[in-house]
Amino acid sequence: MTEQWNAKLIELGKNAKAAAKILRHVTEAEKNDALLKMADAVVANQGAIITANQKDLELGKEKGLTDALLERLTLTEKRVEAMANGLRQMAALPDPTLVTEKQWINRDGLKISRQRVPLGVIGIIYESRPNVTVDATGLCIKSGNAVILRGGKEALESNQAIVNVLQKALEDTKLSTETIQLITNPSRELASQFMRLNDYVNCLIPRGGAGLINTVMRQATVPVIETGVGNCHLYIHEAADIEKARNILINGKTQRNSVCNALESLVIDEAIARTALPEFVEALKEYQVEVRGDEKARAIVSTIGAATEEDYATEFLDSIIAVKVATDYDDAFQHIETYSTGHSDAVVTEDYSTAQAFLKDIDSAVVYVNASTRFTDGEVFGFGGEMGISTQKLHARGPMGLEALTSYKYTVEGNGQVRE
Amino acid sequence: MTEQWNAKLIELGKNAKAAAKILRHVTEAEKNDALLKMADAVVANQGAIITANQKDLELGKEKGLTDALLERLTLTEKRVEAMANGLRQMAALPDPTLVTEKQWINRDGLKISRQRVPLGVIGIIYESRPNVTVDATGLCIKSGNAVILRGGKEALESNQAIVNVLQKALEDTKLSTETIQLITNPSRELASQFMRLNDYVNCLIPRGGAGLINTVMRQATVPVIETGVGNCHLYIHEAADIEKARNILINGKTQRNSVCNALESLVIDEAIARTALPEFVEALKEYQVEVRGDEKARAIVSTIGAATEEDYATEFLDSIIAVKVATDYDDAFQHIETYSTGHSDAVVTEDYSTAQAFLKDIDSAVVYVNASTRFTDGEVFGFGGEMGISTQKLHARGPMGLEALTSYKYTVEGNGQVRE
Repeated sequence: MTEQWNAKLIELGKNAKAAAKILRHVTEAEKNDALLKMADAVVANQGAIITANQKDLELGKEKGLTDALLERLTLTEKRVEAMANGLRQMAALPDPTLVTEKQWINRDGLKISRQRVPLGVIGIIYESRPNVTVDATGLCIKSGNAVILRGGKEALESNQAIVNVLQKALEDTKLSTETIQLITNPSRELASQFMRLNDYVNCLIPRGGAGLINTVMRQATVPVIETGVGNCHLYIHEAADIEKARNILINGKTQRNSVCNALESLVIDEAIARTALPEFVEALKEYQVEVRGDEKARAIVSTIGAATEEDYATEFLDSIIAVKVATDYDDAFQHIETYSTGHSDAVVTEDYSTAQAFLKDIDSAVVYVNASTRFTDGEVFGFGGEMGISTQKLHARGPMGLEALTSYKYTVEGNGQVRE
Repeated sequence: MTEQWNAKLIELGKNAKAAAKILRHVTEAEKNDALLKMADAVVANQGAIITANQKDLELGKEKGLTDALLERLTLTEKRVEAMANGLRQMAALPDPTLVTEKQWINRDGLKISRQRVPLGVIGIIYESRPNVTVDATGLCIKSGNAVILRGGKEALESNQAIVNVLQKALEDTKLSTETIQLITNPSRELASQFMRLNDYVNCLIPRGGAGLINTVMRQATVPVIETGVGNCHLYIHEAADIEKARNILINGKTQRNSVCNALESLVIDEAIARTALPEFVEALKEYQVEVRGDEKARAIVSTIGAATEEDYATEFLDSIIAVKVATDYDDAFQHIETYSTGHSDAVVTEDYSTAQAFLKDIDSAVVYVNASTRFTDGEVFGFGGEMGISTQKLHARGPMGLEALTSYKYTVEGNGQVRE
């Protein structure tokens, strides 16, 4: 079975490469036509999609998946509609490819142009959310890329149903139906092989938890864009507006705590901790947030539990926050520099120079002054859609929209020039 | 020894991270001052550098290194001067960091800015050219990055002498001396560990032959920029200007055949092969180039040897060229699509539509019309220096100048906004 699949995987790779070649030659209108037909097909076939999803859910319940996982896995009519609307929004966005970014004549009289082009074939490895199947595919197609999907086995029936619908919709377009392909064998060995399919896959994007991302980073030879792990900090500086600070803290920690741009740590200046911390802890407790802190924090609020070194390094994705009381800006900065995963970190301050220093000092993908880290999101940034949040520095950083799914090429036009 | 080095490697990583932090805060003038002092020091200490290089050369001769390798390894006064001049040129280039690329206000009233920032710590793994030690370091410093170098063991004495000189020059600057560090233990196991130093190294750039690059791609978990392998094609279209074609062919194959942008394959339209190929083969033979071809080519010129499938897939880096006679544009395109490594490919044609089609169809980092592939070079492109030629699509493609050694970060400035 797996051996058959090894050959099959190469076949998928070849198909995708051929589909990507076709994509290089279709017009923006033809890509948009495909996206709109895909949207219509998703709505027209929502019955089949939801039925398949029911099978996944039943199997998931038998296997004892957590409620949180089952919730992520569930497709409703409303969620299917949202997937279709996502595709329609994608069609309305500007095409990121074939833009000439720069053009110059060099000393040899050569006309050199730098043009945006699709990456080619993008591999997506993700977990249990079946909506990723549609969202990721839409982003790939709009940016001119073929996609090979490898979703979680919990969502296999749903993903298969969705991909069938999308492929069928492509039959009536200028695109190849193999623009979208799904690996339906859940073997891990096969997933490893997929991560090493350098001849056919130009870029791999893992979407999911820290475990998945680490596995891909470790095993892949295909270039990877590392996404997502966010140990996000809020630093409340002594010159903070306390009301803004409270709002940003509560929003960051409680508005949705299972996502990568939620807050995990609070750093607060000693100078204001005595007056402000009790109030903040009380506000957090109203939202059932467990607070863990260092000795200084516990000396101020006795109900705070003890924070370990590990707590400061943890992305809880839960109703827990780790608190550190800082002697000054440098102490706060050192703490954040040590524990931040480089995703999103924020300061609350009314002091101009502190704000400017924080923006410069903090080496994270998105650095905030007086706003919630929850804004780190492609939609919020105005990118129209998002393929994830990059926490590495190569290629793309922070929220990844369509442009992050493109590369560039140089064209050089001469008149017979040779090199001396 | 290796165990000690495992700990030492982490120490190097920590030092580099600290040096990178200092680099984020120095001014352009302070970086330029460091580059100029490094240049002066290289010249002032050329005796010591050349003496160390002599040791490498003696050991190399004992070990029986090829003449080509010994030539690459050799440092002369002139070469040392050239290294110093490279650093001075670097100082004169514009600083690629801290440029604000975009700035906008989003729907929430947040001011979002995208700013160029250094990558942080760059690892360079290279072979026997000691000049890379200086060139790569200069590019890294100008772009605000600390560098950890792992050169070939053949050049160990030379590299150690150079790094000592450069570090000493940094003592009298605002930069840390640990901005530049060298791994002096040549163990392969250690090199593997270096490729997995994700906590400290932001990007790995291998510079060297296909073997080195493949090893790094396979073993590294740190994001890699794949460089260099160039199976470059020249397609002589039936509407070519024959004189331009001959010049470009001879230049691409013979001006310097050991480099990645040299030609390896000639594709020529059948319609002109009968008249033009004999002339081209004769011209190549004047330069002692061995010509291997398909049956059609051999039917036209009997002295052409038989080309195998492997010949078409080989980067010879030698006085050999593989010839294919194409029935038409599509046949030529398919051949190039199959065998090109995506580095540089060229067409010679006077036909406008063919030129435009080639520029669009060929999926390589640099695509040429009527010019030699030998122009794929950061210096020639006007980048002032070059860290290599990227043949992958993520991050940077084609010749990599200073901008390719930077990332960006987003800063978000608000007034207390939280997410609804």
